[in-house]
Amino acid sequence: MHRNDGFRELDRPECLRLLALVPLGRVVYTENALPAVLPVNFFLDHDDAVVVYTSALSRLARAVEGSVVAFEADSFDAAARTGWSVVVTGRAAQVSDPAEAARLGRSGPPSWAPVEDGVFLRIEPELVTGRMLQGVRAGAGHPAAT
Amino acid sequence: MHRNDGFRELDRPECLRLLALVPLGRVVYTENALPAVLPVNFFLDHDDAVVVYTSALSRLARAVEGSVVAFEADSFDAAARTGWSVVVTGRAAQVSDPAEAARLGRSGPPSWAPVEDGVFLRIEPELVTGRMLQGVRAGAGHPAAT
Repeated sequence: MHRNDGFRELDRPECLRLLALVPLGRVVYTENALPAVLPVNFFLDHDDAVVVYTSALSRLARAVEGSVVAFEADSFDAAARTGWSVVVTGRAAQVSDPAEAARLGRSGPPSWAPVEDGVFLRIEPELVTGRMLQGVRAGAGHPAAT
Repeated sequence: MHRNDGFRELDRPECLRLLALVPLGRVVYTENALPAVLPVNFFLDHDDAVVVYTSALSRLARAVEGSVVAFEADSFDAAARTGWSVVVTGRAAQVSDPAEAARLGRSGPPSWAPVEDGVFLRIEPELVTGRMLQGVRAGAGHPAAT
């Protein structure tokens, strides 16, 4: 469905390799029946789950528990009009096992922001999709109206 | 709800000023009852609506027509752990009036990717929220497990 639109679909290994290159992504979920999105720093667990550290009292933690969410990360070069985006879709859940939380505490970088009553959220990598925007000729998009 | 977490809430004028600085954002919507997200380049219309140019046949155009969506843009400095994110929430609709489409064609930069059967999508800026992450001391997040 993306013929001739400058995009190339990425396979799962490519997606995971790219995800590991960036520190920040965005959790996409539903809150009060409205679409919601929040940037967070993250890391990948050994099984490729997305791991986020947040407050157990945060709106994010409360909204996503047990729900299927999307997690998006990307990197684009506006001048070259190149870049990629990857989306992980899967169930989100807090890590309740203390030993597992301790393991994650040793696994990834700390949160960028101070967190009280912190918990780890894992997003299962049930569906991993991505696409790469390859350099496109100038003026490829909508024409200046004539 | 964000006391002591390193974030400052942004008011609507600050959000709109920041949005105008970046070329790329992400449309957050629902597709087949699952959360979905797609990076797109965009511009702001004179009434602060978010404007995206895409194919009328695209999954995005078909999924969001008439729905309330979120649109997110951000800019972060991973080394300094500073940055901002802004979310516009509102109804999305294709611009069907040819004169209005022609006006938008003159208003904004072209799409980064080639688009067939292009249409402009407008996302109404019904709710505009944002937050800024101010520099946080190192080691502020989850402690390395001890």
